[in-house]
Amino acid sequence: MSLKFKKNIRIVKPVLALLFFITIIFCNAQDKVEHPNLILTKKGVALIKKELGTIPIFDATLQTVQKEVDAEIALGIFTPTPKDFSGGYTHERHKRNFLIAQKAGVLFQITEDEKYAIYIKNMLFQYEEMYKSLPIHPQERSYARGKLFWQCLNDSNWLVYVSQAYDCIYDWLSKKERKKLEKNLFRPFADFISVGNPQFYNRVHNHSTWGNAAVGMIGLVMNDDDLIKRALYGISESNIDMNAKDNDGGFLYTAGKAGFLANLEEPFSPEGYYTEGPYYQRYAMYPFLIFAQGLHNVKPELKIFEHKDSVLLKSVTTLLNLTDADGEFFPLNDGQKGMSYYSRELVTAVDIAYHFGGNNPELLSVAEKQNRVVLDDSGLDIALGIKEGKVKPFIKKSINLRDGAQGKQGGVGILRYGNEELTAVFKYAAQGLSHGHYDKLSYSLYEKGDEVLQDYGLARFVNIEHKGGGNYLKENTTWAKQTIAHNTLVQNETSHFSGKYEIGSKHHSELYFFNEDNPELQIVSAKENNAYPGTQMHRTLVMLKSEDYEKPILLDILKVKSAQKNQYDLPFYYMGQVMKTNFKYSSFPTLNPLGVDNGYQHLWKEAEGVPSENNSKLMWLNNGKFYSLTTITEDTDELIFSRLGANDPEFNLRRDAGFLIRRTNTQNTLFVSAIEPHGNYSPVSEFAVNAYSTIKEIKVVLNTADYTAISVTTINGGTKLFIMANTNASKEANHSLKINNKNYTWLGTYYYN
Amino acid sequence: MSLKFKKNIRIVKPVLALLFFITIIFCNAQDKVEHPNLILTKKGVALIKKELGTIPIFDATLQTVQKEVDAEIALGIFTPTPKDFSGGYTHERHKRNFLIAQKAGVLFQITEDEKYAIYIKNMLFQYEEMYKSLPIHPQERSYARGKLFWQCLNDSNWLVYVSQAYDCIYDWLSKKERKKLEKNLFRPFADFISVGNPQFYNRVHNHSTWGNAAVGMIGLVMNDDDLIKRALYGISESNIDMNAKDNDGGFLYTAGKAGFLANLEEPFSPEGYYTEGPYYQRYAMYPFLIFAQGLHNVKPELKIFEHKDSVLLKSVTTLLNLTDADGEFFPLNDGQKGMSYYSRELVTAVDIAYHFGGNNPELLSVAEKQNRVVLDDSGLDIALGIKEGKVKPFIKKSINLRDGAQGKQGGVGILRYGNEELTAVFKYAAQGLSHGHYDKLSYSLYEKGDEVLQDYGLARFVNIEHKGGGNYLKENTTWAKQTIAHNTLVQNETSHFSGKYEIGSKHHSELYFFNEDNPELQIVSAKENNAYPGTQMHRTLVMLKSEDYEKPILLDILKVKSAQKNQYDLPFYYMGQVMKTNFKYSSFPTLNPLGVDNGYQHLWKEAEGVPSENNSKLMWLNNGKFYSLTTITEDTDELIFSRLGANDPEFNLRRDAGFLIRRTNTQNTLFVSAIEPHGNYSPVSEFAVNAYSTIKEIKVVLNTADYTAISVTTINGGTKLFIMANTNASKEANHSLKINNKNYTWLGTYYYN
Repeated sequence: MSLKFKKNIRIVKPVLALLFFITIIFCNAQDKVEHPNLILTKKGVALIKKELGTIPIFDATLQTVQKEVDAEIALGIFTPTPKDFSGGYTHERHKRNFLIAQKAGVLFQITEDEKYAIYIKNMLFQYEEMYKSLPIHPQERSYARGKLFWQCLNDSNWLVYVSQAYDCIYDWLSKKERKKLEKNLFRPFADFISVGNPQFYNRVHNHSTWGNAAVGMIGLVMNDDDLIKRALYGISESNIDMNAKDNDGGFLYTAGKAGFLANLEEPFSPEGYYTEGPYYQRYAMYPFLIFAQGLHNVKPELKIFEHKDSVLLKSVTTLLNLTDADGEFFPLNDGQKGMSYYSRELVTAVDIAYHFGGNNPELLSVAEKQNRVVLDDSGLDIALGIKEGKVKPFIKKSINLRDGAQGKQGGVGILRYGNEELTAVFKYAAQGLSHGHYDKLSYSLYEKGDEVLQDYGLARFVNIEHKGGGNYLKENTTWAKQTIAHNTLVQNETSHFSGKYEIGSKHHSELYFFNEDNPELQIVSAKENNAYPGTQMHRTLVMLKSEDYEKPILLDILKVKSAQKNQYDLPFYYMGQVMKTNFKYSSFPTLNPLGVDNGYQHLWKEAEGVPSENNSKLMWLNNGKFYSLTTITEDTDELIFSRLGANDPEFNLRRDAGFLIRRTNTQNTLFVSAIEPHGNYSPVSEFAVNAYSTIKEIKVVLNTADYTAISVTTINGGTKLFIMANTNASKEANHSLKINNKNYTWLGTYYYN
Repeated sequence: MSLKFKKNIRIVKPVLALLFFITIIFCNAQDKVEHPNLILTKKGVALIKKELGTIPIFDATLQTVQKEVDAEIALGIFTPTPKDFSGGYTHERHKRNFLIAQKAGVLFQITEDEKYAIYIKNMLFQYEEMYKSLPIHPQERSYARGKLFWQCLNDSNWLVYVSQAYDCIYDWLSKKERKKLEKNLFRPFADFISVGNPQFYNRVHNHSTWGNAAVGMIGLVMNDDDLIKRALYGISESNIDMNAKDNDGGFLYTAGKAGFLANLEEPFSPEGYYTEGPYYQRYAMYPFLIFAQGLHNVKPELKIFEHKDSVLLKSVTTLLNLTDADGEFFPLNDGQKGMSYYSRELVTAVDIAYHFGGNNPELLSVAEKQNRVVLDDSGLDIALGIKEGKVKPFIKKSINLRDGAQGKQGGVGILRYGNEELTAVFKYAAQGLSHGHYDKLSYSLYEKGDEVLQDYGLARFVNIEHKGGGNYLKENTTWAKQTIAHNTLVQNETSHFSGKYEIGSKHHSELYFFNEDNPELQIVSAKENNAYPGTQMHRTLVMLKSEDYEKPILLDILKVKSAQKNQYDLPFYYMGQVMKTNFKYSSFPTLNPLGVDNGYQHLWKEAEGVPSENNSKLMWLNNGKFYSLTTITEDTDELIFSRLGANDPEFNLRRDAGFLIRRTNTQNTLFVSAIEPHGNYSPVSEFAVNAYSTIKEIKVVLNTADYTAISVTTINGGTKLFIMANTNASKEANHSLKINNKNYTWLGTYYYN
C-alpha cells in the first residue's frame, strides 16, 4: 500500500500542473472558432486540395472512400429502433452510420460537394428526432447499457466518429440547426454516457477512454468547457460504489483516477506498452490518438502529444513491435487472432505518429503496406512522405517492454532472430486489468508469421452474432483465461492466483535478465513467486543460432522450487500434425477430459506415453515446415497429447493440439526443452528437406540454487555448454564454477561455449 | 464379358497398324545419329543460344537451374549404398542425383561449359562401378523392389531422367566410355526393371508407364531397337501369374495389354481423363509426355502426339481443368492435397502441350503463373510466346469428363460458376484402378481455392520418412478409401461394393444428365445401381445463381430406392467451425467412435441432435467466409457431428469435422440439401457481413418415380420450383405434370421457375 501511495503522489504533481495550465487556457477560450478544427483543419484542407491528384496513396484512398460513401448515400439513411447485440442488424446499421458519417464529413471538406453535408445533416436530424425519446437499449447483458447500442461503449464509438462529422459541417449548418442538434442530441448523448453511467465513464479502462474521448470531442466541437473538463478529469466520485465490478470481473473504479488523463497515465508503461495487451491497445489507440489530435488542434497549449515523455507517440511504435512478421498482434491476454496493423485504428495511429512524431521514415513502410491513409492532415503528410521516396523499412528487433505506469510491474520480452525468422514472446507482466489471462512466464513462438507454439487468444467471435451475440463466450473464462490454456507451468491442475482477478491484480513477475546484444545468443529470464504461494518459478528463454543449426532454436529452462510436493504440468501448444516421437505412446479407445476444472475440462486426453530415453522428442509438421521439441524427461514423467474441445457444447473452441509433460509428486524440479524449427516440405515438389532434429541430446550438467548448466550436443557431435547464474544477474559479476573437475570462469550472467 | 471383348477388338486394330508401321521404321533405322536428339535437339539448342538473354522467363529459369546445379557440383557427388525408404537420406540423395544430372546435361548443351559434362560423367561412372554388384534394395515392402530405391518405380524415375543427361553428353563421351556405361549400367538397369520385374513392368498402371518410358528413353539414346520395342509393347506374358495383385490391392496384369502404347490406350478417356484421378495423372504425365517427346524427336514417323485423337495433348488441358482456382488438383481417389499445376511435371506438360499442340495461347497464362519453363525446345517456344505478348487467360469452365478408354465408364462432372466462384466436382466414375476410392456419386465443393465440402484425399505423407517411410499409411485403406470418408451415401455402415476392389472394378456409375448451357442453372445428374446391390441411387447437383442470392448456391438432390429397409448416412465434410444450428444437439462427456469398421472406427461422435423443424440448418465459418447447409429432415433423423481421429494411434489423420444425417429403418427416401456460401468476416475490420442464410425453406413438393419437384423459398419471400424428370433425360421430351392442382408443362429434363 505504501508503494501505491508514493506512486500516486508522483502522478498527482504533473496532473496538477496541467490542470492549472488548462484552467488558464479555458479562461482565454475564444468564442469564435473556425471549423473544421478538430481532426481536419482549415489549413490542412487547403493543403490537401492543393496536392490532390499527385499523391497516389491518398488519391486512391479518397476514391475508395468516395465510392463507399456514395453507395451508402444511394441506399438511403436508416436509423432503426435499437434492439440487437453486435452482429445483429440494428447494431451493425448504427455502427455503419457513424463510420460513414465521419467519412462523408471528410469528403464534404475535400470535395466541397454538398450532397455529403446534406447526408450528414439528414442523418443527424433523424438521430435527433429519435434520441429525444429513446429508452435504454433492450438487451440487458451489459453493466452499462447504451441507447443506440447494447453497451455505452458502442454509444461512445458513435459519438467519437459523429463529432468529427459534425465538425466538418459545423459552419455549413445554420446556428439554429446547431442549437437544436446540440440541445436534443449531442449534449444529452454526452451526459448519458458520462454522468448517466459513471460505472462506465469513471474507470481506468479502455471502455472509459472511449467515453472520455467521446465527451471530449463533442465538447471541443461545441466549444463546451464543461464537457472538455469532464473528458479530461472524469466526474465526481460521490455516489459511486467503489467496490463494484464489471462483466469481466475487474474492479470498476480506482480511487482518484478517472478521465482521459488518468487513462493516459495509468495503463501505459513508459515505453508505451498498454497493460491489457496489444489487441486492446489497438482498440484503445483510436480514441487516445484521435482525441489527442483534436486537443492538439484546438488546445495546442496542452502539448498533449508530449505528455508523459510522449508516451502516446511511443505507444504506436511499441504496438507495431507487438506484431508477428505478417503484422498480426500477439494475442497476449484477451486478443482475437488475425487483428493486425492493417486495421483502421492502426492506419490512424501510424499516420498520427508520423505526422506529430517527427516524420519517422520507418513508419512510411508500414503505411505503404497498409496501402491507405487517413483523409486528413496526417494522412496527407504520410502520403507525401511515400511519394517523395522517404520510405525506410520498419525493422522489428528484440525488445523488452516494461509493464505498469512506472514500468515496474514486470513486462513482455520479445526475442527476435534476423528478419523475424524466429520470435519468442515472453510474458512476465502484470495482470492486464480485466482482460488479463493467468499465464505468468508463458510464451508463444513464431517462425515469421506462423505460430510454432501458440497462445490461444480469446474465446470470442467479435461481432459475429451467431456466437453469443458476438460477445465474450463463457469459454473465455473457463478456458482461454486459465493457465492450462497457455505454454506455462500449472501446479496441481489449478490456475495461477487460483484464477482470481483480485489476487492476480496484486502481483506481477520480475524480470531477472534481458540481453539482446549478441544476435546469436539472446536471453530473457524472469521469476514468478506469487502465482502459487510457496512456489518459485524461474524461466529463461535463450534464442540460439550457430552454424550447427539451419535455423535459430529456442532453449527453454524452467526452474521450479516449492515448499511442498506437487503435480507439475508443462504444456506446449504446438501447431500442426504429429510426425514422430522417440517415445512410445498409446491412444485411447474412448476420449475423456483431462480434468474437471480450471480449463482441464476442455481438453480431451488423446494419447499418453512415457519417456524411452533421457530426452523425449516430439516432431511435427505445420504449413510446410518441420519442428522438433526435445525435452529432458524423467522416467516417471507422463507425456500427454491433448486435444481441445471437451465440454464445448456449442463448438466455441478450436480443435487445437497440445502436448504436456506431467511430473507428479515432485517438489523442486527443472524442465529443460529445446524447440527447433527445421527444414521444409512442399506438397508441390514433394521434397522433404532437413526433416530431422539436429539435437542429439540436451543434458543438465549442474543444477544448484545459484547455477544451472545445460549441455546441448548436436548430431554433428559438437557439444556446447550454457551456464546461467540464477541469483546474480549483474553484467559485472565474476563467476567461477567447477563442473566435473573442470573450472569455468566468466563475467556476467551467463556462460556459453 | 462380351462388352469387354468388343472393346479389345477396337483397340487391337490401331495397335496392329502402328506395329506394322514401326517395324518398317526400325528396319530403316540409321546407325549414325547426332546427339542430343531425345528431348533437347541440335536444332533446338542452336535456337536457344540465339534467343538467350532476350527471353525473360527462360533466362530466369536458366539462372535458377544453374545456381542449383553449381551448388550441387560444389558439394560433390554422393552415391551412397541404398538403404532408406523415401524421405530417408539414401533415397533423397539418389533422387536428387538424377534430377540434377538431367539439369546438368541441359546446362552443358546450352552453356557449353564442360564442368557439367564432367559432373555427369563422374556420376555415371560412380553408378557404373556400384551397379555391377548392387543387390536388391534391403527394404522389403514393395511388390517390386528396386536396386537404387526401395521400389522399381523410383529406379525407373532415375532412368527416365538419367537417359536425358546421357543423351546430352553422348557425343562428348568417347565410344569406349559409352560402351562401358551401356554394358554395365544402362542395359542391365533397363533389364532389371523390365524382364527382371514383369510384375512391375507389364501392367496397365502408372508404375508401368514409368518403367516403359525409362526403358524406351534409354533405348532411344542407345539406339537399341530391342529396348524400344520392349518399351512400346511390354514383355512376353509367359511365366506370369495373371491373378497376382499389388500392394494397393489392384490386379497386376491385364491380358494382352502391356507396354507404353497399352498404357496410353487404356487409362485415358477420349477427353484425356486419366482413370486413377488427377494426382496420378500428373505423376504419369511426365513419363508419358517426355517419352512421347523423345519418340517424336527420334521417331517422328510414329506421330505419337496424334495417337488416339491426340489424347496426350488433350490430357494436359483436361488436367488443368481438374484444378481449383489456386491450381491445386481435386483430390479424387488417392491424391495428396496441395499438389498443383505448379509442379515440375505440369511445367513440362504445359510446355510440351503448347509446343506440340498448336501453340494454344491460354497455356501461356498457366506458364506465366508457373514462372519457369523447361530448358528445351518446348520451353523456348513457350517463353517466346510469353515474350511476344500472346498470353490469353486460361478460363476454366464447367466440363463433363468421361471415364474409361472409350469414355463409357461414367465420369467426373465439374460445375463452375463465373470465375470459379463456386465449383462442384461430382464423381460418377469407374473404380480408378488400385488408387480408386469407394465413393460413387460423391462430390466436393470449392469457393475459389477454398474447400467448402472436402474430399479427404489420401492418407499419406509422400516422401516424409517419419510417416511410414513416406508410403501409403494403413489409414489410407481403413479410412481414406472408405465410402464414409466422402460426401456420399453410406448404407448400413458399409462401403460401396463392400470396399472390394474386385467388385468395384466391374462397375461404374451412369451419367443421367449434364447441362451447363445456362450459367445460372447448371446440372449434373448420375445414377448408381451397383454400389449396394438392390439399391438405386440417383443424385443431382444443381448450381443456381439469381439475384436472390449473394453468391451461387448448390442444390443437392439424392433419391434412394431399395429392395429393403436400411440405415442411410449422408455425410457433409464441411470445412471450418460451427457457428450455429437451428436444431438442438448435445455434445458428449466422453467420446466414442461412431462405428467399428469401414472407416466409422476413425470418427469420434462429438455431438448429436434431432431436427426441430422440417429444414435443419448448419451454419459455419471458414477462412473469413460464412456457409449454410439447409437440408430437409424427418422427425426421426439423427443429426450427428463427427470428428476424425479415433483409432489413429500415430496421428496420421487430420482432426477434420463432419456432419451427417442418419435416417434409419428406411427403404426409399429422398435427401434434399442446399449449400450456400454467403458473406464474409474479417478479423481486421471485425465486420461480419451477410452472416445468415438466404434460404427460408426448401420443400419436397412432389416425389414419384418419374418426377421430383423441389421448392426453394428465400427470406425475401420468393419461391422457385425445380422439377426434375427422373426417367427421361432427353432434351426433346415434353413433360406435363399436375402439382397441387396446377399444371406444369415443359420441354427437356427439368423445369425451373
